[in-house]
Amino acid sequence: MYVALKGNALIGQSGGPTIVINASMVGAIEAAERHPEIEHFYGALCGLTGVLNEEMIELFREDDDVIRQMRYTPSAGLGTCRLKPKESDLERCMEVFKAHNIRYFFYNGGNDSQLTCHLISELAKGSDWEMQVIGIPKTIDNDLVITDNCPGFGSAARYAAWAVQCAARDAMAFGNVEVVEVMGRHAGWLTGATQCGRKEPWMAPHLVYLPEVTVDPDKFISDCQNAYDEHGYLVVAVSEGFTFGESEQATTSEKLDEFGHARLGGVAEALGHLIEESIGVRARTDCLGNLQRAFSPCMSKVDNDEAYAVGEDAVNRAVAGENDVMITIKRKQNDPFEFETATTSLMSVADKTKLVPDEWINADRNGVTDEFIEYCLPLLNTPVSDLPAGLPQYPVFQKHFAERKLGEHARE
Amino acid sequence: MYVALKGNALIGQSGGPTIVINASMVGAIEAAERHPEIEHFYGALCGLTGVLNEEMIELFREDDDVIRQMRYTPSAGLGTCRLKPKESDLERCMEVFKAHNIRYFFYNGGNDSQLTCHLISELAKGSDWEMQVIGIPKTIDNDLVITDNCPGFGSAARYAAWAVQCAARDAMAFGNVEVVEVMGRHAGWLTGATQCGRKEPWMAPHLVYLPEVTVDPDKFISDCQNAYDEHGYLVVAVSEGFTFGESEQATTSEKLDEFGHARLGGVAEALGHLIEESIGVRARTDCLGNLQRAFSPCMSKVDNDEAYAVGEDAVNRAVAGENDVMITIKRKQNDPFEFETATTSLMSVADKTKLVPDEWINADRNGVTDEFIEYCLPLLNTPVSDLPAGLPQYPVFQKHFAERKLGEHARE
Repeated sequence: MYVALKGNALIGQSGGPTIVINASMVGAIEAAERHPEIEHFYGALCGLTGVLNEEMIELFREDDDVIRQMRYTPSAGLGTCRLKPKESDLERCMEVFKAHNIRYFFYNGGNDSQLTCHLISELAKGSDWEMQVIGIPKTIDNDLVITDNCPGFGSAARYAAWAVQCAARDAMAFGNVEVVEVMGRHAGWLTGATQCGRKEPWMAPHLVYLPEVTVDPDKFISDCQNAYDEHGYLVVAVSEGFTFGESEQATTSEKLDEFGHARLGGVAEALGHLIEESIGVRARTDCLGNLQRAFSPCMSKVDNDEAYAVGEDAVNRAVAGENDVMITIKRKQNDPFEFETATTSLMSVADKTKLVPDEWINADRNGVTDEFIEYCLPLLNTPVSDLPAGLPQYPVFQKHFAERKLGEHARE
Repeated sequence: MYVALKGNALIGQSGGPTIVINASMVGAIEAAERHPEIEHFYGALCGLTGVLNEEMIELFREDDDVIRQMRYTPSAGLGTCRLKPKESDLERCMEVFKAHNIRYFFYNGGNDSQLTCHLISELAKGSDWEMQVIGIPKTIDNDLVITDNCPGFGSAARYAAWAVQCAARDAMAFGNVEVVEVMGRHAGWLTGATQCGRKEPWMAPHLVYLPEVTVDPDKFISDCQNAYDEHGYLVVAVSEGFTFGESEQATTSEKLDEFGHARLGGVAEALGHLIEESIGVRARTDCLGNLQRAFSPCMSKVDNDEAYAVGEDAVNRAVAGENDVMITIKRKQNDPFEFETATTSLMSVADKTKLVPDEWINADRNGVTDEFIEYCLPLLNTPVSDLPAGLPQYPVFQKHFAERKLGEHARE
């Protein structure tokens, strides 16, 4: 019989936050409380940065009330980072794990973070330090492979879909054009999800452009003209990564993020100008922006439940001896929606991107199919009922710091 | 005893929509149903444009269900316009009123629209056509004089305040700067309202800039630096009309709207760049955009109740013989919030703008005072409970058109 490792656990939140990433942390904390093998459960402040700098807080010492509220608090309550670890950083992590008797490491992030998890797991396997490393999935982009969907997506999609319905009413009232820019560099899941709100042909969004497609500008303009003529207003949803194909979309900034990705933006404005010039109707633009990963009034219940479950399951599986895996979601049935958790190897998801499959994009390349909607709708259709009535007062951790054991770490 | 005019009524929605403008229309319809003096209640499509073109629908023939749902449907269900009427347009209105036996005209809008109402009222008084003209207040900007507040403001403020809290958690998670751009060309009510969410000093927004103030750029930068150093993150809320005073804020467009106002925008991006360069921390920006006047999940109950009441009261007062007035809100008590309706002459509000009083702006010119918060909080603090659980399916009118009686109107 497997004997669980005794020692401490550590969790970190990584990359862009989501509306439900804290639900995964709370799921992990509440599971860890049920395992006497876990003595201290540390939270790394700002992901791997907090591991490197030994900035770790004792999650078991936080108030139960704060933990409960944190489940419904958007964005990363521990702080986050976009750090891409170098070899020396990973070695430092191992030193920190040993110094603090960390036998369980959980990292909640996207495909970059799952790679980090795998590298740490490999390093541990090759050393004398026995530990379990499990990745917890998270991304509003829904672009992790193998898992049915990614916690964080459903709530972002609910906000984006609802926002498009509301912005559409503004465009309808004026008989205007409205272009809504949705997050998504390479994968158009979130932009496609806005079509879930279109229950009748006259409803918005009339045209939906994903980064997976390239469209001829003339076809784009004629599609806009036709939809405007038919409905008397026009709403276009477009991914920030959409281009006309012949050249890279102009970005609003020359700056790159920490992974060398260009900071995107400005596609809605560019398309708005083009439509205004081509069809002669005023085009307004809205960029849904950071609220897609933070706007808690639109939290999806299914999404929050999934996020909690993957955090809880990560701890349970780690204590049961699983290692070098990411928790996944398996869809059991669609209506009413039911899921279960499973696992996949970290290497199977690391650094990979799941695009919207071509057969889920319509023949005109300006929308998604019914299959996409059927897949997507249950993830975003149900609200969380315990949102605050007044304005929110989101909690912060008290932060009881673990004592430092090592000297400072100078990054290369 | 006053004998009410017998005939038909007409209502139009004007200017920028709000989240609750339809609640005023529903209040008017339901009041009109109780007055046998009103035979037909017409809705002008797209405000005055619909009057000029005789595009009027019969509101009494719409389904009761649609009317009920319309109360909670954002943006102008009849359509809206920004038309500034010329003398010949006003004369055309009188022809339409006579042709359709319109004895009651209600126009729901901001200070431009109240002026239009007054001009029509004057024209009617000077003619042989007896009719009552009443203005119904509406604006997310809250900048109408005399009335305690404007229906439309509370819901926009609720969205803006909640959005700032959510965006703030994103900035906090990264230790970044976040600049949120809020609507408001001249009046900073909506931007000031975001401070209602700041219940503790560490909470956002840390700095709030209204168009009523001019600030020295060096003072701005040092305020940003100090707040960032103190809290480890920084959230700035800024009105679209804010400038540093020495020159006009760059706008994103050279274009003017129908009233000759510049289309504003881009101030958050400009400030974000300045902060990034000055204090060396990444600054992200979000522009709350059109959702401020359309995002129904953040509808305020007090705002919806006020909007309904001013619509209802306009009809009741018109039938009782009042004319050439706008309905106002009088605050009776703050907690629990109670209000009553009253009236003021159209000329007292037409073309006037209520700015945030100087004594409600703090000494450092980077926030509002407790008195502002006390005024503002009850308007945005309570949610509407009957929002749809799934994604919204907002209704549209069936549109039974009134028969045209006149030839076409060619605008000068």
